[in-house]
Amino acid sequence: MFKDCLDFSAEIVEKTIANYLKDFGNIDVVEAMRYSLKGGKKLRAFFVLESAKLFDIGPDLAKWPAAGIEAMHTYSLVHDDLPAMDNDDLRRGRLTVHKKWDDATAILVGDALQALAFELTLNRAVPNCDMLGCNLAKAAGAKGMVMGQALDIYAEKSTAALSLDDIINLQQGKTGALIQWAVTAGAFMANENVKPLENYANFVGLAFQIADDLLDATGDQIKAGKKLMKDASANKATFVSLMGVDSAKKKAQDLIDEACESIAVYGQRSDTLKQAAKFVISRDY
Amino acid sequence: MFKDCLDFSAEIVEKTIANYLKDFGNIDVVEAMRYSLKGGKKLRAFFVLESAKLFDIGPDLAKWPAAGIEAMHTYSLVHDDLPAMDNDDLRRGRLTVHKKWDDATAILVGDALQALAFELTLNRAVPNCDMLGCNLAKAAGAKGMVMGQALDIYAEKSTAALSLDDIINLQQGKTGALIQWAVTAGAFMANENVKPLENYANFVGLAFQIADDLLDATGDQIKAGKKLMKDASANKATFVSLMGVDSAKKKAQDLIDEACESIAVYGQRSDTLKQAAKFVISRDY
Repeated sequence: MFKDCLDFSAEIVEKTIANYLKDFGNIDVVEAMRYSLKGGKKLRAFFVLESAKLFDIGPDLAKWPAAGIEAMHTYSLVHDDLPAMDNDDLRRGRLTVHKKWDDATAILVGDALQALAFELTLNRAVPNCDMLGCNLAKAAGAKGMVMGQALDIYAEKSTAALSLDDIINLQQGKTGALIQWAVTAGAFMANENVKPLENYANFVGLAFQIADDLLDATGDQIKAGKKLMKDASANKATFVSLMGVDSAKKKAQDLIDEACESIAVYGQRSDTLKQAAKFVISRDY
Repeated sequence: MFKDCLDFSAEIVEKTIANYLKDFGNIDVVEAMRYSLKGGKKLRAFFVLESAKLFDIGPDLAKWPAAGIEAMHTYSLVHDDLPAMDNDDLRRGRLTVHKKWDDATAILVGDALQALAFELTLNRAVPNCDMLGCNLAKAAGAKGMVMGQALDIYAEKSTAALSLDDIINLQQGKTGALIQWAVTAGAFMANENVKPLENYANFVGLAFQIADDLLDATGDQIKAGKKLMKDASANKATFVSLMGVDSAKKKAQDLIDEACESIAVYGQRSDTLKQAAKFVISRDY
């Protein structure tokens, strides 16, 4: 059930974006945008579509913010992979944009994908699209994702060790902010109480990052489609290095239980979101 | 009169942004955002405030999109100055962000400024802010500014000579798209006919770029606050290299006459915009 919904999200988002980019021409930057958007779990799009479904908003409308959040997430990956940042050669099982093209193209691809994220989200057919757009800007900006990225980079350069609180703060920006936007999108579109979904997002976001650290430390590089063991080789403080593998696994499981509890108010309608929470900590990619 | 309005725009935008960024903390990325936003003509903000004034929309509301477009313009400068792009050390009379900090910070500063542009523009108090936001995304993205930047970079690498039409296409993306957004913002906010302002923007945008090429070829580097003679030393086709200095000056003057004609419909109310058009081709910075 969850896997079907996840596949459906990936399909609808790739189709929506491919259609949208049809008349964008074929210069390198646009080709590289199309390339970078392919693959990946499209988990954030799934969250948008599922939260919309809770309030009877269908994929015909929810596909716009769902496509928007994936454009935003993809921009962050393209820039994060640059030599001046994380310097990665592999992403989603293929060469990173700057390896396949060059740094200038990758910078422009990320820039254009961020603009595309807003273009897709600010579709006038989408209820409260202005609020979604403004929230998206906040989630992506210097108090959200960019803040997390910056703290991450400064941490790598600094000799001061990070505490668990530092890491939580960093991750709430780096991955938590976009996940929270995606999970609450449905409630914002429907003008409904966002609190249950906000709580779910906070628990799932943190569990997602712990799972990412576990994946980095113990995962299979081929399945993951990206370089692993990066944190250990950079001697970087993570949930795993600070808590140990077993405690980190236990913590992630507790967070998922709390996440499922948070959305119990929606009854059976939230079953797929509960399965998603479990997937987040059991995934191998 | 025009100069007073330009100074007023700069002041209101710097104040609006400084206030807005007050609770963004003091990590390097945020400090570098504040640094990069200082100075410059703030001509795009002026266009937003003046076009709003035509329809009796005051600076209390228009300051939001005015600040937004300056954040967007500044992001494009910060990324454009990167070593992988234009590799410039000087901007607005001071060190570029990547020279004063580093490449990673400059990438993140640009990314955060683009998000900030949407955050400021999508203020719910601003009428039709969703439409402004969506237009801004289109103007900034892969069919607008990024397209222009990409064509510019590919042109530098290519041995094929650019025609005048190529340069016009490139410049309509690189500088024209944001100028048009700024000039038409007032009409969009007021739900009025955008055509006169759209025409004005097209003429002024092209004249602006011809003036920029003239400045690069014949200007004073100290007054300009950035490196000049870049096009000639890169052997780059420009309006000046293709038309000659005198013809380029004549063409710019003709465009300004046409720009002023386009907004004659607004009578005396458009006097400041007419003065602005004249300033665009007479500026030395």
